[in-house]
Amino acid sequence: MPTHSRHPTAQVLQTSDHTFLIDCGEGTQMQMNLYKIRRSKISQVFISHLHGDHYFGLIGLLTSLGLNHRANDLHLYAPAPLKEIIDLQLHVSNANLPYSLIFHSLENEGLIYADKKITVECFKVDHRIECWGFLFKEKKNLRKINSEKVNQYNVPTSFYESLHEGKDFVDANNNMIKNESLTTAVTPPKSYAYCADTGYYEPIIEKIKGVDLLYHESTYLHNLEEKAASRFHSTTKQAATIAKKAGVKKLLLGHFSSMYEKLDDFKTEACEIFENTDLAEEGACYFV
Amino acid sequence: MPTHSRHPTAQVLQTSDHTFLIDCGEGTQMQMNLYKIRRSKISQVFISHLHGDHYFGLIGLLTSLGLNHRANDLHLYAPAPLKEIIDLQLHVSNANLPYSLIFHSLENEGLIYADKKITVECFKVDHRIECWGFLFKEKKNLRKINSEKVNQYNVPTSFYESLHEGKDFVDANNNMIKNESLTTAVTPPKSYAYCADTGYYEPIIEKIKGVDLLYHESTYLHNLEEKAASRFHSTTKQAATIAKKAGVKKLLLGHFSSMYEKLDDFKTEACEIFENTDLAEEGACYFV
Repeated sequence: MPTHSRHPTAQVLQTSDHTFLIDCGEGTQMQMNLYKIRRSKISQVFISHLHGDHYFGLIGLLTSLGLNHRANDLHLYAPAPLKEIIDLQLHVSNANLPYSLIFHSLENEGLIYADKKITVECFKVDHRIECWGFLFKEKKNLRKINSEKVNQYNVPTSFYESLHEGKDFVDANNNMIKNESLTTAVTPPKSYAYCADTGYYEPIIEKIKGVDLLYHESTYLHNLEEKAASRFHSTTKQAATIAKKAGVKKLLLGHFSSMYEKLDDFKTEACEIFENTDLAEEGACYFV
Repeated sequence: MPTHSRHPTAQVLQTSDHTFLIDCGEGTQMQMNLYKIRRSKISQVFISHLHGDHYFGLIGLLTSLGLNHRANDLHLYAPAPLKEIIDLQLHVSNANLPYSLIFHSLENEGLIYADKKITVECFKVDHRIECWGFLFKEKKNLRKINSEKVNQYNVPTSFYESLHEGKDFVDANNNMIKNESLTTAVTPPKSYAYCADTGYYEPIIEKIKGVDLLYHESTYLHNLEEKAASRFHSTTKQAATIAKKAGVKKLLLGHFSSMYEKLDDFKTEACEIFENTDLAEEGACYFV
């Protein structure tokens, strides 16, 4: 439930090319206004499951995009029944969206999106109804060729692709020129995993192994582990244990129950197991 | 569309016995939190039509009431297809509301609710899809008997009902005792009419004749009369003309297009035709 200071779930993942929207609780379009995130830039929407706190804001966002004369396609990845809900709501309002809404029904684990720079995979988490996690991975960035150096060593252009991939060069006199002398490194590829809503569920560990940033729900503090289990939610320590076992670089906790006013204990408890933990706070930005 | 400072439509009508909710755009439950209106007190919900800015917040409100363990019945008056939308959304989330949601489909003009103190009627307005206005009327309040005086004049209890209704009393010696000597007046009954969304539509005049407060939409200023007509909306002067012709006591304008940042001109233009005009502002209270 929404509280005075916390809205239901929605996250924007900004990459060099994309504005991905992950879940879309009631009020998301207003919060995007508030935080000056341009709704028109969204290219893909990913909906984890059909509990209202994760999608009741979607229909309002879709129709507002229409009223704003959006023309670009919008891709929506979600459990199948969402299509019926959207179609029914558009039908009763006698409305046609001026853009193509392309629905991708989540059915199997694995790759759901790929382009030159990024892939998105979905995987099952453990909730009361069908629920999906999402893994966003940059592709490996190619090393950058130093044009002055390749000229100096007479590297033929046919070898450039190998250079991009990090191979050393052997010249006509059998001298080996190390790749590092001919190229410069670029940023290592980043990865982000989103896991909401789920009980403690070890099968996800192999899916999210080593990610730079893991968002894992933590609806309750440690003392409510039984309640968490009965509602297919996680506690602080369970989320931190998943982070530790998966060897991720950083953990972000969220989806705090509306029964908690202050959140300090969430961080304290999780840090006992996994130190690099932060809280997903309303309106905050996190760099991967 | 929502703007920085204006949410989609929702109104709460507070009577001595009821908290009526009229329309329920996205974010209504959060705004009720903000303005400290207790959601649990709502007894009846009236939805004018199925454009999103008038009902997208309803499903979130209904499910939050459920999470708050509401037990009292909730009555919902709305166009028929809303039932299917709510049922589908509850079904996919595998949720049962812990209270009875009693759906009343709006089909004919006339009385839709009555109790000892109040009646609610619906009437058709002129919009792109089926759309209803609502008229809330207190019943005539009975005059209050002055017990000292009825004893003094020996009025038999069998005549009390006639006294309540304002009749004069004739005693055994044929002296007429004026009702005003035996009873005291009470507050005259109040009435409120809600008209959204609608083009300029004179048939509503007879329905709302003489109401204490008329809410009439005014999506556009006067210079956009053509645009208003093509979209089945009204301008300032059209709303004011309806108020004048219906002889209402006060006019409240609302549903301003998101293209307007400042609203001063709405009041100025309407006042030229109907002076006692006010603007429906976010979070404000209006006494009938």
